[in-house]
Amino acid sequence: MADTIAPKRRARGGGGAARRAERTAVRIECAKYIERNIPNFEVLNEEALQIIEANAETVLEEIGVAFVDNPVALDRWRDAGAEVTGERVRIPKGLARKLCATAPKSFTQQARNPDRSVEIGGPNLVIAPVYGPPFVRDVQGGRRYATMDDFNKFVKLGYMSKWLHHSGGTVCEPTDVPVNKRHLDMLYAHMSLSDKPYMGSVTEPSRAQDSVDMSDILFGGLEDRTVMTSLININSPLTFDATMMGALEVYAAANQACIVSPFIVGGAMAPVSVAGTLTQVLAEVLAGCAYSQLIRPGAPVIFGAFVTSIDMNSGAPTFGTPEAAHITYGAGQLARRLGLPYRSAGSFCGSKLPDAQAGYETANSLNTGLMAGVNFMLHGCGWLEGGLVASFEKFVMDADQLGVLHKLARGVDVDEEAQALDAIREVGPGGHYLGCAHTQANFKDAFWRSDVLDYKPFETWSDEGGRDTQIIAAARVEKLLQDYMQPALDPAINEALQAFVRQRKEAAPDAFA
Amino acid sequence: MADTIAPKRRARGGGGAARRAERTAVRIECAKYIERNIPNFEVLNEEALQIIEANAETVLEEIGVAFVDNPVALDRWRDAGAEVTGERVRIPKGLARKLCATAPKSFTQQARNPDRSVEIGGPNLVIAPVYGPPFVRDVQGGRRYATMDDFNKFVKLGYMSKWLHHSGGTVCEPTDVPVNKRHLDMLYAHMSLSDKPYMGSVTEPSRAQDSVDMSDILFGGLEDRTVMTSLININSPLTFDATMMGALEVYAAANQACIVSPFIVGGAMAPVSVAGTLTQVLAEVLAGCAYSQLIRPGAPVIFGAFVTSIDMNSGAPTFGTPEAAHITYGAGQLARRLGLPYRSAGSFCGSKLPDAQAGYETANSLNTGLMAGVNFMLHGCGWLEGGLVASFEKFVMDADQLGVLHKLARGVDVDEEAQALDAIREVGPGGHYLGCAHTQANFKDAFWRSDVLDYKPFETWSDEGGRDTQIIAAARVEKLLQDYMQPALDPAINEALQAFVRQRKEAAPDAFA
Repeated sequence: MADTIAPKRRARGGGGAARRAERTAVRIECAKYIERNIPNFEVLNEEALQIIEANAETVLEEIGVAFVDNPVALDRWRDAGAEVTGERVRIPKGLARKLCATAPKSFTQQARNPDRSVEIGGPNLVIAPVYGPPFVRDVQGGRRYATMDDFNKFVKLGYMSKWLHHSGGTVCEPTDVPVNKRHLDMLYAHMSLSDKPYMGSVTEPSRAQDSVDMSDILFGGLEDRTVMTSLININSPLTFDATMMGALEVYAAANQACIVSPFIVGGAMAPVSVAGTLTQVLAEVLAGCAYSQLIRPGAPVIFGAFVTSIDMNSGAPTFGTPEAAHITYGAGQLARRLGLPYRSAGSFCGSKLPDAQAGYETANSLNTGLMAGVNFMLHGCGWLEGGLVASFEKFVMDADQLGVLHKLARGVDVDEEAQALDAIREVGPGGHYLGCAHTQANFKDAFWRSDVLDYKPFETWSDEGGRDTQIIAAARVEKLLQDYMQPALDPAINEALQAFVRQRKEAAPDAFA
Repeated sequence: MADTIAPKRRARGGGGAARRAERTAVRIECAKYIERNIPNFEVLNEEALQIIEANAETVLEEIGVAFVDNPVALDRWRDAGAEVTGERVRIPKGLARKLCATAPKSFTQQARNPDRSVEIGGPNLVIAPVYGPPFVRDVQGGRRYATMDDFNKFVKLGYMSKWLHHSGGTVCEPTDVPVNKRHLDMLYAHMSLSDKPYMGSVTEPSRAQDSVDMSDILFGGLEDRTVMTSLININSPLTFDATMMGALEVYAAANQACIVSPFIVGGAMAPVSVAGTLTQVLAEVLAGCAYSQLIRPGAPVIFGAFVTSIDMNSGAPTFGTPEAAHITYGAGQLARRLGLPYRSAGSFCGSKLPDAQAGYETANSLNTGLMAGVNFMLHGCGWLEGGLVASFEKFVMDADQLGVLHKLARGVDVDEEAQALDAIREVGPGGHYLGCAHTQANFKDAFWRSDVLDYKPFETWSDEGGRDTQIIAAARVEKLLQDYMQPALDPAINEALQAFVRQRKEAAPDAFA
């Protein structure tokens, strides 16, 4: 905690000056997180679920998991009743599931703008952008290493994206900032350029602590409120490394949310079968989430599943595949039975360009995510080339397609207005509905409309240069960045955040690896 | 019937010479039609379904439907108990549903190669290519009017496509052949260049009869077997024109299958609401399918729903939208309750190019079709620009994506081999699965693999020219056409078909409108 540079603690949501500034600022439209009014799709029957659950318990008890370079974690597990041999932790059947029971089924992640706080769990779906690519791509500049300037642009695009509820975390790796300091700039960007919820750093326990401290400044005191959801990857198979666990320990202690997420390329980090992969995923999530409850019972934690298949010819990970869909559906069922919020799916694709391959693969995964009951979708827009690249054009293309999910999730109204029997009477056989009273009253909200895709007649489209989706999207990127208006932030908080970043940067030499 | 030019009737599946020729020919791989082992996705609850069903009956009884220029149809309806005023047919509640009860829940459409016969109904999904575009597009030639040469190429591509079960019908309009004769060339192409099942002509009752007669020649006698599934569009709202009904009358009388399909751009031909559109769709399908049973009880008939939304800014139809998905899911539920096979979804998109827009929109619709329980998917590949264009590249791109649906539909195995517990034991924490016994035994069939999409590392892809999906697909089009081998056909049957086409062409002057 960096009390010395924190401003005077304030009520939730920032001070009076911030509130006044906010009221006078241009309001950027942002949809509420998705509340599903449609059922979840389920591929596993009761028998299959029981087999996988029983096998996961067998894996935990018989094979166990490794907590590497983390003697304190081993002590915690021993105290909780696990059998610890070296770094191997064997968890008696039922223990991990019992420990998970103290985690909330659903939790609120607060944003500094209270209108943008999100509820993660239940029927809800909260969507965040791409996370982690070292490269960026756009039509003008091609593929290149990401910089802090790129990062800031992505945060602005996320803020301007109506269907995106969350600002995310490492939307790209700002490779021009030292490894040990870039988390400070990234957090400051999310905090100052957006007012949507965000993620914290996980690359070092001390950086997780920086994330907590900066959040404390931004929110004027955390008081155990959850204001970050951060990504804790499991080193599959069955290994929990000290870096990620160290970050989890910091976050759980501060009541900040973690996604405990197996990172699996099927056939490499898990068996080539769906049932085998689900077994391992469940075992890993059970162990990781149980461990978070050993740190602090009640700490919010999310059942994660990042799973792709592999092309056995080239060894490349593949995306939008049927096997990934099966796992995404099945893991959703397992998460709901465990009573935890669920993270999976995203704008996944293996394509090098935002072309048709990217479109097919991404749409496959986005649709699967909605239908699978995902509660937190990381990588919801902008992912390209197996996650190596954050694409500016694909960011806005995907973010636009997220609108399809919002409307799909609303389900079908059958009230009297929706039944439209009077319209059918009015029009009758052979007529048309364009001018009828029901159409006039309802057409504005009747159909979802893309802000990116081309709906023009061929001749108009051709006269305008015959642009493909990527080129149209490039124009939208430019427009959104031009229209961007920074959300107001209390100047005292802003100065305190800047002072914290400055102080932390001065405290250590630059490191680039 | 053209008995004079038909060869001697033979047993099913062609003669001995054909069978011998077939055995020596190169075998082209073709997947069996999809048999779903996953549940259907349902958006309507019981109450919503009952409201829509009751409203559809109200529409039929109170508003009725129009059978235009078709006095014999009016007589049939009068005899069946409907109230006929002018061309308006008002159908008492329950009558249409009762008449539909004689239609089969599922039926076999035979192909001349018995291995390629398809079962339409139940958990099955049979996929046919795009239907109707006056234009074609490819990378080399751009967008242009379709010709018979294009048509033949599409039939060959369909024959070579592993995941396509059906050769379709008017895969594009061969505009260089007279309107009143092109159906003969199209049928001959399906019959001679492919051995997959096909569709008949619906543009004139006499052309439907030609389709029956040519099929009689091809199969050596039909004997009431179903060998065609043809597309009967309803002139929505609530209008049945004499051309389409004339074709339906020919087909139903010959026990050939018809898709009775409302053709709806929502907001123009139906109300702007999903529930209102579903009401009208159900009323129209009930009337059309009931009419087919008045022609011949037991004639196979399919509940069709071709439904898109409209862009209220430009008036253009839009595809892959959430409203179309809601209708596709809902209509599937209504079809199953009515006990009829269901046709909907396809490779729909509004894009002018096979780009990312095409990918998103198409994947949205293909996924919806699988999950909605569609039994016959027309337009399963090749559709571009709202159906105005058949795209060569998109044909092979979409046909490849149909492989995703095949694997998805198989569901998840949980037998002991799939559970892979021994593999998890063998590898343990921190290991990898690439070389383990379970992977070696299962990797070949573990993951679906695209034959089109790019899985190469960035550097390789870049060295090879940085091709987008369209360019990669163009190479595949060329390769498939090069590799194409015509399936064997009994020379006597082939000559008889050619003689029939020649005779029918000579019997009338050319017409181009």
